[in-house]
Amino acid sequence: MDSTGNMWILEKNTPQQPGGLKQRVISALLYCTGEMKQLHTHMKDKSFLLQFSEWCLRGISRVILLNNPLSGALIIAALLLESPWQALLGMLGLLASTLTAIILGQDWEDVSSGLHGFNGMLVALLMGIFSSAGDWYWWLLLPVCLGGATTTFISSSLAPVLERWDLPVSVFPFNTVIVLYLACTGTSNPYFPNYPAQPPGTPESTNHTQLHVPQLLQGVVLGVGQIFACGTLGPSLLILGAVFLFSPVLAVHALLGSVISTVAGMSMSVQYSFLYTGLSGFNGALGCMIVGAFFIFSWRTHLLSIANALLSAYTDIALSNLLGAVGLPACSWAATLTGTLVLLLTGENFKEYRIPTGKVTSPEHNLHSHKQWSVANTNTTDV
Amino acid sequence: MDSTGNMWILEKNTPQQPGGLKQRVISALLYCTGEMKQLHTHMKDKSFLLQFSEWCLRGISRVILLNNPLSGALIIAALLLESPWQALLGMLGLLASTLTAIILGQDWEDVSSGLHGFNGMLVALLMGIFSSAGDWYWWLLLPVCLGGATTTFISSSLAPVLERWDLPVSVFPFNTVIVLYLACTGTSNPYFPNYPAQPPGTPESTNHTQLHVPQLLQGVVLGVGQIFACGTLGPSLLILGAVFLFSPVLAVHALLGSVISTVAGMSMSVQYSFLYTGLSGFNGALGCMIVGAFFIFSWRTHLLSIANALLSAYTDIALSNLLGAVGLPACSWAATLTGTLVLLLTGENFKEYRIPTGKVTSPEHNLHSHKQWSVANTNTTDV
Amino acid sequence: MDSTGNMWILEKNTPQQPGGLKQRVISALLYCTGEMKQLHTHMKDKSFLLQFSEWCLRGISRVILLNNPLSGALIIAALLLESPWQALLGMLGLLASTLTAIILGQDWEDVSSGLHGFNGMLVALLMGIFSSAGDWYWWLLLPVCLGGATTTFISSSLAPVLERWDLPVSVFPFNTVIVLYLACTGTSNPYFPNYPAQPPGTPESTNHTQLHVPQLLQGVVLGVGQIFACGTLGPSLLILGAVFLFSPVLAVHALLGSVISTVAGMSMSVQYSFLYTGLSGFNGALGCMIVGAFFIFSWRTHLLSIANALLSAYTDIALSNLLGAVGLPACSWAATLTGTLVLLLTGENFKEYRIPTGKVTSPEHNLHSHKQWSVANTNTTDV
Repeated sequence: MDSTGNMWILEKNTPQQPGGLKQRVISALLYCTGEMKQLHTHMKDKSFLLQFSEWCLRGISRVILLNNPLSGALIIAALLLESPWQALLGMLGLLASTLTAIILGQDWEDVSSGLHGFNGMLVALLMGIFSSAGDWYWWLLLPVCLGGATTTFISSSLAPVLERWDLPVSVFPFNTVIVLYLACTGTSNPYFPNYPAQPPGTPESTNHTQLHVPQLLQGVVLGVGQIFACGTLGPSLLILGAVFLFSPVLAVHALLGSVISTVAGMSMSVQYSFLYTGLSGFNGALGCMIVGAFFIFSWRTHLLSIANALLSAYTDIALSNLLGAVGLPACSWAATLTGTLVLLLTGENFKEYRIPTGKVTSPEHNLHSHKQWSVANTNTTDV
Repeated sequence: MDSTGNMWILEKNTPQQPGGLKQRVISALLYCTGEMKQLHTHMKDKSFLLQFSEWCLRGISRVILLNNPLSGALIIAALLLESPWQALLGMLGLLASTLTAIILGQDWEDVSSGLHGFNGMLVALLMGIFSSAGDWYWWLLLPVCLGGATTTFISSSLAPVLERWDLPVSVFPFNTVIVLYLACTGTSNPYFPNYPAQPPGTPESTNHTQLHVPQLLQGVVLGVGQIFACGTLGPSLLILGAVFLFSPVLAVHALLGSVISTVAGMSMSVQYSFLYTGLSGFNGALGCMIVGAFFIFSWRTHLLSIANALLSAYTDIALSNLLGAVGLPACSWAATLTGTLVLLLTGENFKEYRIPTGKVTSPEHNLHSHKQWSVANTNTTDV
Repeated sequence: MDSTGNMWILEKNTPQQPGGLKQRVISALLYCTGEMKQLHTHMKDKSFLLQFSEWCLRGISRVILLNNPLSGALIIAALLLESPWQALLGMLGLLASTLTAIILGQDWEDVSSGLHGFNGMLVALLMGIFSSAGDWYWWLLLPVCLGGATTTFISSSLAPVLERWDLPVSVFPFNTVIVLYLACTGTSNPYFPNYPAQPPGTPESTNHTQLHVPQLLQGVVLGVGQIFACGTLGPSLLILGAVFLFSPVLAVHALLGSVISTVAGMSMSVQYSFLYTGLSGFNGALGCMIVGAFFIFSWRTHLLSIANALLSAYTDIALSNLLGAVGLPACSWAATLTGTLVLLLTGENFKEYRIPTGKVTSPEHNLHSHKQWSVANTNTTDV
């Protein structure tokens, strides 16, 4: 029932007889947004290299809960703009984990929709950010490849455990691998030295100055970029654009989550640098987006997404303080854990809005197919 | 079979023709002890406010494994005696988490038997105890409400995971939320400063003096009170009385567990202040009570309850030392973890004594319905 | 099908008409290798004490993934050679946990194959190694007995959780109990003082000297011995011999894993003392052996065993650094966790090689019965 509902949307999205220029533009836009299933079907006859590129681009977009190769391309552009070295590392981590998935013989459908790439990419990006050996330190490619491969290994093992409760593997492998890598190498390693992570709760070293509002607003946008460890405005806006391309609803969730998370950070008086660089915002943004992606959109689930962003933000501060005591970052542990909790909610008022993990697409499509399904259901019961 | 067995007990507990004064007193006492199911049935026609009060009072008693509104009232009295501010915080946390359960649409049966209140209450009480901002610091009501709501959120999510193994959610949400809250705020937060937790294993600062036996004995009783963060004798005795009202067997378990736990603390030479204030005793008391509540009473399970109290006590010292290294308390993590382990025991000699989580009432009733059930079983096999 | 396959091997292993001396030696050797199922059957008529000894000897060999009473006897000899006090502690821990299993009423089959002894033995050995009170400190027998009993308690509880995914309980109970014990007692306890554990990543205190190759090679062999906390060459070789007796393939895995793990340690520039004493090697050895024992031997699974040894080694360095920050050792957490992950792998290329937990014997027998099974399968499909 659900799959035919989706088919129907796709038919409507691509009118058979495009009229003027305006209609053509709209039709092209509709083609590029959402999951781009048509491209996926179209690609099946193409060469392996082209197909593989599509998988990788989808994998990149998966980091931020999207599933659209164009969004992936936009994000790669953003990373190149930020730092070509980081973009190279990210691509290598992505390749390493996707190839490992093929070697392990993971489910073909999962591999081709990019589900085995995003953890490797994130590990690579964070390894690059925390390395204190500077850019173009070629030895770093070694742990990047190994770390990327390990994420697939962990994904493959966690899947049977988590799927008992219909939970996605999410970024658990990334968080595990990066924390182990940083604990393994430490700050004084002769081959792979890292910067220590600062806990956000340490008292300000400078005198208590006024909060700078424009910087704070910039921090909110950077919060979306920080999901890819991007700390500058341009790339962050590009990444936000990539989200918008897949689903405007998710883009709103990302920004809203970042705002809530930044406010939560202020209420705990974290260091200003955390607010300005977006480090306070990204867990809230992710927490808000998870509810947006995995639940049918309604005012109830909207409140839930706000609650989850708040919970995510506070949990992040707590975990950052705890892990910061041994010089480790909390990465996206907070959003991953609270996101997993929210997906397990059993309350009757929210259970019906939860989309089964395998059926999740963009919020717009989810809403549409849900309505269709409800109508069909009503018709059946009428008869 | 079991439910009819319970019905039968209740009928016997309320003789139809009360004779003299003595019989009336006994009948009233029997009415007030145990689960007070009659009151629960009686309440169903009353106004929502009255019903809600009953749920809340049951929720308070749930903290210490009881299910009796009168016990709840006694405990509230004990808290008021100890500190009105603490009692206010506890009630607010209880309200916040119960209301969240109603908003989330949790199972009505669970809400009305107080299963969604006790975690919120505990979080609120501990927030108050650790706050270094003094009593009547009104800003604290904010985290109390948020923390209470979060416990329900976590309860609702943990339930489907734990019920696969027929485990109760127990106080996992409370322990998670309070540790995260204290890690998030820390000791130098400008809005919500806390006292740091002391690890019990740090060497005594004063010279090695003689152990004071009367203070030690008082510490045993305070161990029961410390389940509600009560550190004075009067309220602790009231709380012990509340346990006795629900089930004399559980009250014995509570005291026994506290004794064992205090002895375990002495064998590890923890600081005297931990022994005297009951902080050494409360995890053992809980560990002992869990076995008392979830297993049919017999000499075998009695040995198990002693073993679990011991295990709980040593685990608590270990966790307190570990978490104390970053200034955090171990709360009741030890009793919760060992209690969960004991409920999972697969050994044939104990499996038959385990009561399914949904059927647990007071140990006396459990014993009774078990005997009934055994008799019925034998009769059936005879025929 | 599988069991008849095993029967057939055993029949072939014991030719009915032994000819000359050479054949008799071979027949005796074949009798002593592998699982020695014939001895197990033979023992069933003997006195309880003899049977119990066989169970205990099997339990000792279980520590290192074997199941052979003669291997167990060899290992006890190695421990006696290393330190009689340690051998005594190990035996006591083994007895305590096996007896607890009998008291709890655990499955008889499990008890008699030594599955409830090895965790207790390991706890006892590590308690002895870390105790700074010196040898023949008789008070240590108390925690050894309690710790041994607790491992059975935890095994019994973890089993129903882990068996949902067909996972063995492995050495989770040992690792939990020893970390809790060391955290509970600490380094300055007046009754049970311990040495603090050193994190391997702390910079060398001496000047950077050349690596000593012969000591490094010795460290590889010691890596196998360190599974039993043995730090000298003779006993380590005896333990390696015990592995060889059960299965030459596993012995190769043990050495290979230790080599890989030592190389991994060098790549992270851990302290030389860790490389020389085998502390760097033992987690890799275990990680490699787990794949060797639980997967049908083939070149694919051989690559997997190398990958797992590598992962195990790096995880061990990370965990040792983390736990070392609070003065605790990482024990075999790394190998246990990565081993559990590898057993959960869902990739199609490895899934078919995984042996169900209950059917695991020596790699040679596994390979044989797998081939038989495959042939039988082909025949069936032919018809």
